[in-house]
Amino acid sequence: MRYKIKVEYDGTNYVGWQAQKDFPDKSIEEILQKAIFQMTQIKVDINCAGRTDAGVHAIAQVADFSIEKEFEALRMMMGLNQYLLRSDLAVVDCEIVDENFHSRFDAKMRSYRYIIINRKARLALNKNRAWHVASPLNIDEMMKASKFLLGNHDFSAFRDAQCQAKSPVRTVDKIEIKVQDDKIIIDVFAKSFLHHMVRNIVGTLVWVGLQKLKAQEMSEIIQSKDRTKSGPNAPACGLYFLGATY
Amino acid sequence: MRYKIKVEYDGTNYVGWQAQKDFPDKSIEEILQKAIFQMTQIKVDINCAGRTDAGVHAIAQVADFSIEKEFEALRMMMGLNQYLLRSDLAVVDCEIVDENFHSRFDAKMRSYRYIIINRKARLALNKNRAWHVASPLNIDEMMKASKFLLGNHDFSAFRDAQCQAKSPVRTVDKIEIKVQDDKIIIDVFAKSFLHHMVRNIVGTLVWVGLQKLKAQEMSEIIQSKDRTKSGPNAPACGLYFLGATY
Repeated sequence: MRYKIKVEYDGTNYVGWQAQKDFPDKSIEEILQKAIFQMTQIKVDINCAGRTDAGVHAIAQVADFSIEKEFEALRMMMGLNQYLLRSDLAVVDCEIVDENFHSRFDAKMRSYRYIIINRKARLALNKNRAWHVASPLNIDEMMKASKFLLGNHDFSAFRDAQCQAKSPVRTVDKIEIKVQDDKIIIDVFAKSFLHHMVRNIVGTLVWVGLQKLKAQEMSEIIQSKDRTKSGPNAPACGLYFLGATY
Repeated sequence: MRYKIKVEYDGTNYVGWQAQKDFPDKSIEEILQKAIFQMTQIKVDINCAGRTDAGVHAIAQVADFSIEKEFEALRMMMGLNQYLLRSDLAVVDCEIVDENFHSRFDAKMRSYRYIIINRKARLALNKNRAWHVASPLNIDEMMKASKFLLGNHDFSAFRDAQCQAKSPVRTVDKIEIKVQDDKIIIDVFAKSFLHHMVRNIVGTLVWVGLQKLKAQEMSEIIQSKDRTKSGPNAPACGLYFLGATY
């Protein structure tokens, strides 16, 4: 049986999705593997839609794994949550899917959310959950700049040096920027992303908001394919894997 | 000079607003007093609009204190935030006010927010920040029930045994219930509240939502003036002091 789960997590205290030998029991992957083992006595491999970095959160990470034994989907979800009680993870959905389902390879669309708090004062309730930008941001300019990113481009200017993707070409389908008081929410939708692509995009949008860059310069930055032309890599703590569709 | 500040805090790791001898440096009041002392070398008394209990949060607690020395309001705010870096508090606003201003006695209206997450799965991102109610809630019935609470009533049925207020009569001016996906936000507005009044109201509304009580029974519960007739005291972690007006 193949199980597709959705996982919510606060990534603050973890090294990211992927298991790391030097940090046993500090990855989302291992915490999940352990919960599945405690419930089923089976050690599984887990695929996921988006392997998040250290400190990055998820609202609905999608993952899948196979075990011989059949559990009712709701029972699987509730059982795993029992074993996750002391973690910062929660399984928020579970369904039994086709044997061939693969959360990474089959995703038709992925989305990330980035949260900025734009105010002078430090963060208390959103500490580790948002990027604190103290200087005022010009949101209209950020919205204008975001339009240049839409569509099919070579995103080398927003690609981390460690990125292992074969091609730097990606298609950004939608960028939504919403403002709620001092909170700025940036949702980015694409079939797939380069490593650090969303954080580099947000860092560049923030430079536009701070008027270090003009909105129109976004077009030149994309065309330059040069990482040194774009803005900083926005902090991990503001990023959330929002979801994936199949 | 009298300073009026607004304070945001995550109350999870504190014993509440009020200093407690057995828990040094674990109250919001003391953490603030210490930051003010570090900045000004003066030990002050602090008043606040709503003395929150252990585990209760604030979006904009209002507080005031007097010191001889004059600091520019923004400098006071930024300075205090420097000394609050290792705390879960942030001073989000500061203004210099009339010597006679008193955040507790002068408040014309106070508001509290209560957040419920209504879903089967445990909480990860909202752990310690909301009440997890796993069984489905009938929100329409909760909204109906909330109407009975509006206006001037003897709220003895929603009053904690330890409440020290002289009169159990209060006026609830507004209750707003908003739904965002699995999040239910209940904002309650009144000039002042009895001890545990908001949490007892929310606990009773949740019983209505779970259909343990009918919406119309809210009226009988108020009239009974009997705490044993109302619902449970909702957990502290879902409650936020939202603000006060003067």
